[in-house]
Amino acid sequence: MATTITDIVARDIRFPTSRAHIGSDATHPDPDYSAAYVTLRTSTDGLEGNGLAFTIGRGTEVCVAAIRALAPILRGKTVEGLAADLRGMWRSLTNDTQLRWIGPEKGVLHLATAALVNAVWDLYAKLEGKPLWKLLVDLPPEQVVAAIDFRYITDALTPEEALEILRRNAPGKAAREAEMRREGYPAYSTSAGWLGYSDEQLRRLCREGLAEGMSHFKIKVGVDVADDRRRAAIIREEIGPQRKLMMDANQRWDVEEAIRHMRQLAEFDPWWIEEPTSPDDVLGHAAIARALDPIGVATGEHCQNRVIFKQLMQAGAIRFCQIDSCRLGGVNEILAVLLMAAKFGIPVCPHAGGVGLCEHVQHLAMFDYICVSASLENRLVEYVDHLHEHFVDPVRMRGGRYQAPEQPGYSITMRQESLDEYEFPQGPAWKEQA
Amino acid sequence: MATTITDIVARDIRFPTSRAHIGSDATHPDPDYSAAYVTLRTSTDGLEGNGLAFTIGRGTEVCVAAIRALAPILRGKTVEGLAADLRGMWRSLTNDTQLRWIGPEKGVLHLATAALVNAVWDLYAKLEGKPLWKLLVDLPPEQVVAAIDFRYITDALTPEEALEILRRNAPGKAAREAEMRREGYPAYSTSAGWLGYSDEQLRRLCREGLAEGMSHFKIKVGVDVADDRRRAAIIREEIGPQRKLMMDANQRWDVEEAIRHMRQLAEFDPWWIEEPTSPDDVLGHAAIARALDPIGVATGEHCQNRVIFKQLMQAGAIRFCQIDSCRLGGVNEILAVLLMAAKFGIPVCPHAGGVGLCEHVQHLAMFDYICVSASLENRLVEYVDHLHEHFVDPVRMRGGRYQAPEQPGYSITMRQESLDEYEFPQGPAWKEQA
Repeated sequence: MATTITDIVARDIRFPTSRAHIGSDATHPDPDYSAAYVTLRTSTDGLEGNGLAFTIGRGTEVCVAAIRALAPILRGKTVEGLAADLRGMWRSLTNDTQLRWIGPEKGVLHLATAALVNAVWDLYAKLEGKPLWKLLVDLPPEQVVAAIDFRYITDALTPEEALEILRRNAPGKAAREAEMRREGYPAYSTSAGWLGYSDEQLRRLCREGLAEGMSHFKIKVGVDVADDRRRAAIIREEIGPQRKLMMDANQRWDVEEAIRHMRQLAEFDPWWIEEPTSPDDVLGHAAIARALDPIGVATGEHCQNRVIFKQLMQAGAIRFCQIDSCRLGGVNEILAVLLMAAKFGIPVCPHAGGVGLCEHVQHLAMFDYICVSASLENRLVEYVDHLHEHFVDPVRMRGGRYQAPEQPGYSITMRQESLDEYEFPQGPAWKEQA
Repeated sequence: MATTITDIVARDIRFPTSRAHIGSDATHPDPDYSAAYVTLRTSTDGLEGNGLAFTIGRGTEVCVAAIRALAPILRGKTVEGLAADLRGMWRSLTNDTQLRWIGPEKGVLHLATAALVNAVWDLYAKLEGKPLWKLLVDLPPEQVVAAIDFRYITDALTPEEALEILRRNAPGKAAREAEMRREGYPAYSTSAGWLGYSDEQLRRLCREGLAEGMSHFKIKVGVDVADDRRRAAIIREEIGPQRKLMMDANQRWDVEEAIRHMRQLAEFDPWWIEEPTSPDDVLGHAAIARALDPIGVATGEHCQNRVIFKQLMQAGAIRFCQIDSCRLGGVNEILAVLLMAAKFGIPVCPHAGGVGLCEHVQHLAMFDYICVSASLENRLVEYVDHLHEHFVDPVRMRGGRYQAPEQPGYSITMRQESLDEYEFPQGPAWKEQA
């Protein structure tokens, strides 16, 4: 008996994080972490698929509108039918002959695509009774490759090359899976370094991170170089010379500005500079990477699709690839980027934080390790300790590591009470404010 | 007495063009040419500003939602205040601290930005009693530069360089303005080459174009090489060896495919190949340009912003720059691209067609010639003979040239009857269909 997607519901869920300056950076001083939250209702009693577009407040309603525009493409389909042609499923969403005009494969439309695509994978994993990472690990290499749309990337990665990467890693898979179940995937913390925090908060959060076993810390930079130098000195003092310090400019600079500003922060030995300029500027990132070496350039949370990632890799513009689980078009496109990164020898360090991004990317990082990269060298997943309480199957951290998820699905399902409390604008959390 | 923007209305206007295969190409076989249409109502009786996001059917409602999300930024502002700080006006729309997350500067959000920005310029020009091109021509170079956001492009063009370009062209301005008023700006036709047309239609439309004085013709290609060869032969036979034949693949190919396919069409002497691959693939376009020389590469109608255009120019990836008046973020960002193109010596041949694009770009091309490029060499504006009847001040063609608009504003205002007839889904044009 097949499981049919009978209805698709999109809700505007917002958390008032800006009230406590949580998540503040050089470009986004007042985010209200939000989600355009998707529920795929099915013909099977009690079975639903969930996905979300992560947003930061205003504009969530635009993503909800885009999800509703795409919904007819999935409504009435069976999960079994979608799972049997995952590439076709992805293409049907990204290549609608009229909707693609308002993308294609970028911005609002692609955020909505990701929410729906991830909801299909969540449903597929729940039906199979496996956490998503395990579902992916157990797929034959041919089926992983069959989920990828290679359009526009065959000059960097062919289906044959992708298959070859997956096959050559098959021998060690079982051992790496056991390692992930036993030890988890290493994380780094961004909780400490938000721009809106005081020096005392910064110091206290560093110490808490150290106590939790963290070895990598990230700080927001970019507004004022003197302020950045003071805060970098504090964090370096707290974490010592051996641990890694990363810096994140959140797209603040032009190319020359990035080079000038970072040269004044080089003495604090940054491991990477993240988002030094426009996420669209492949050649700019390449110029910055050449000028700042040995500081690595990292980017990706705003990289709109596999075509931009392809070019960042081709141009030698990034030393770290920061996939975003919800900005790329869901699991299918993530697979393409993971395999390109493996071909180019670039470590993937997923972007997380926000609402549910940690819940998503733990699955992707574990699959990457077990089946694609087969390495943990220079690889970490971002971790931010916020809003996990709203999820039915939240991340579990131990010793600075993400523990392998065990419940079936993609861990994106939110608690009913949270959805009702924070729905914008009618939920009690927002009504009290008004 | 200042003019205040009192209200902002966005409407979903769709024309059922797909019923006659108008506009069909390799990627968009069934467009219903549409517009998310903006009206800025003001405190001055009878004065309104108009702008639109051009779309092709489904998804127009998503652009309407994005316009509504951005509208509070302009509501209550005075036109005089906005005109006094045009760069600030643009930045307030493109850098809203929360909304930028669902862009930034790309896709739905940027289409909505363009509609609003262009509506402000329309209002500004109407207040000044000038057509937009003339308003721009009369602005002192310092004010033109002050309208541009140079963020992320200073590695290619500084404000000083932009000013220098405008100043060095000042001497010939009056003569070029007189020439435009007398002769108009040269156009080329795309009406003939849609994929959905029969060979007989193709032949007839070529002859009509020749009779109208056209010297450049464009054909859609990309689905089937044998079919492309047959249609290219027909059009070359009709137009003779001297006139220019352009080809447009509408993003159909991967990089290697583009090179292979076009080598089989080279004998028909194409002047350019337009949109050979993903609009996001700067390095891909550069590889295609190197391989296909002397066939030029043209792109732009899907170029999301000035950062992508900057890179296409830096990488030597395009020989023709096809700005889109509604996909770039309105007049302000167009100015940035025109000036970068002038610096790199790349001719600008605006994309047009659709709904109102011809009405927009005639103004931009005339300003470009009079103040920026000072040349007509290898420069033409696309022209498609569709849907002009819905505009209050439609384009006027004579001898294959756009005649200089004379009415105040940006020529975007649509007729009230058309808006009412084609509003989706409640207008009579759609109700009859349902």
